[in-house]
Amino acid sequence: MDKKVIVALDAMGGDLAPVEIVKGAVDAVKELNVDIKLVGQQDKINAELAKYTYPKERIQVIHAEEVIGTDEVPTSAIRRKKDSSLVVGLNLAKSGEADAFVSAGSTGALLTGALLIVGRIEGVERPALGTCLPTKNGFTFLLDSGANVDCKAKYLEQFAKMGSVYVENIFGMAQPKVALVNIGAEKEKGNALTKEAYELLEVSENINFVGNIEPRDIPFGQADVIVCDGFVGNTILKLSEGLSKTLIDIIKEEITAGSYKFAAAMLKTPFRNVKKRFDSDEVGGAPFIGLKSLVVKAHGSSNARAIKNAIRQCVLFTEADIVGKIKHKL
Amino acid sequence: MDKKVIVALDAMGGDLAPVEIVKGAVDAVKELNVDIKLVGQQDKINAELAKYTYPKERIQVIHAEEVIGTDEVPTSAIRRKKDSSLVVGLNLAKSGEADAFVSAGSTGALLTGALLIVGRIEGVERPALGTCLPTKNGFTFLLDSGANVDCKAKYLEQFAKMGSVYVENIFGMAQPKVALVNIGAEKEKGNALTKEAYELLEVSENINFVGNIEPRDIPFGQADVIVCDGFVGNTILKLSEGLSKTLIDIIKEEITAGSYKFAAAMLKTPFRNVKKRFDSDEVGGAPFIGLKSLVVKAHGSSNARAIKNAIRQCVLFTEADIVGKIKHKL
Repeated sequence: MDKKVIVALDAMGGDLAPVEIVKGAVDAVKELNVDIKLVGQQDKINAELAKYTYPKERIQVIHAEEVIGTDEVPTSAIRRKKDSSLVVGLNLAKSGEADAFVSAGSTGALLTGALLIVGRIEGVERPALGTCLPTKNGFTFLLDSGANVDCKAKYLEQFAKMGSVYVENIFGMAQPKVALVNIGAEKEKGNALTKEAYELLEVSENINFVGNIEPRDIPFGQADVIVCDGFVGNTILKLSEGLSKTLIDIIKEEITAGSYKFAAAMLKTPFRNVKKRFDSDEVGGAPFIGLKSLVVKAHGSSNARAIKNAIRQCVLFTEADIVGKIKHKL
Repeated sequence: MDKKVIVALDAMGGDLAPVEIVKGAVDAVKELNVDIKLVGQQDKINAELAKYTYPKERIQVIHAEEVIGTDEVPTSAIRRKKDSSLVVGLNLAKSGEADAFVSAGSTGALLTGALLIVGRIEGVERPALGTCLPTKNGFTFLLDSGANVDCKAKYLEQFAKMGSVYVENIFGMAQPKVALVNIGAEKEKGNALTKEAYELLEVSENINFVGNIEPRDIPFGQADVIVCDGFVGNTILKLSEGLSKTLIDIIKEEITAGSYKFAAAMLKTPFRNVKKRFDSDEVGGAPFIGLKSLVVKAHGSSNARAIKNAIRQCVLFTEADIVGKIKHKL
């Protein structure tokens, strides 16, 4: 067996911490070729670990006294709380004691801390947050989904390259199709940013650029990687979540309103299947790509399965040497 | 009865022109306090008009030989095709021979032509395209939904004022709640544009600014008017269309895949109701606001009902003197 990947995991971040986080770590060491460093308040972590039978040598508890809340201002929280699970975990990734770091805690603090502590790969201007956006037949990898709200065209070109490497290696898609999110299919459409980005992407080497994708077509999944600035990306991501929820609510409302209760009862399974197709736990988190180590932002509501899947992502990422491949591609 | 409103209508624009456009005009004069100037190739228009019984004096045919296609470059099409239904119709709105102009033709040509020919209200920096976005309990008026892809903060403040006047007068909502589309609820969140726009909106007089709205919350309809740049607005609009369609497809797929055919048959009515709640024909078009006359972009696939509702919008707009009220509010 290869050398095991070591993942540092923030035991204190997320709505269901530490219970589900610790359970995710236990499940991960049982199923994956990984060792875990669980970072946080050791009494709480040990109390959770005591519930399970697992290979003890593969989970190490690293004590960190402080916790950064989701309501704290990222920069000052990172500077002030040196002994927080988030800062201690990021330092493990920086020093090489861990290959990657996963946290379901504050997005802002994680992104800020990752940039300050782990640092960018040489040549990467802005690391990007990637998200697997569910589509009709699978998913599209969207970046940037919120880390960089104001972008230059050059950043978008780098997002395209990093996204291609990621999707190729993590999901095994050869020559992934890369599209630019734009309001119009033709090259000359869009705003100042997308017009300039199109020019760069068109002549960019090592990516399979297929042109613009209109927001209307995103849910049909015609591209494997889609790039845009973080404001637009976050808008796409969050609107998709809100709209899916609303539509399903409305459909259920209409069904239960009339004399369709019998039909509604029969439809539990199809509705569950629809929900599953849009299930973010399956992927288990958004990778922050372009840093010297992988940092994964797990959803705030992550359960054990989501955490395990985020860890799986770290294992694949490290084994495939994505950092090396990004350096090579830029 | 008041003086009748006169609406110029592009008989040649849209996928279902001239058949459905002419039918929409006939329905409008029967139901509304309006006279129509139908602009386009008179032989074709007269052949359609011959199918109906209606008060002849209330529909006038204005011949225009040329048609601008949706694939033409807007600026050159407007300059070159002086005798197109679109240019002739816009000139009627400019000269005051019509109070408003409705077209289901090329969006780009209509917006460009409206700016060049009809012109802006004094003080309006950028007219905005407004859209009624369906929400869980009604709709939200979104502007700009695609006319201005690169915006300054000042434009967004004007969109908020114009949107408020529109919603108050057309839909009778007093003190409409205005929100800024932003990726984060707090004032300090967002990109350079939204941060600056927030500062302006916060102290802006005559609007009921309620702060940021996150894209996730848009479908729940917590604001009456939402403002953003045209790139983000068009993304919201088109992604909503695409995602609604995809989700309904997926749900139907799941229902018909299993042994749920019986349930599916029972669900035709609820599904039709859901579709109706998201029906754009009900509103009948996107008003281009901030011009000296109202110009309405009807959807390319508009049927007679959509056209009639677009005309109704023109009647309300003119009777309420929205141009005067916008001047007063800026």
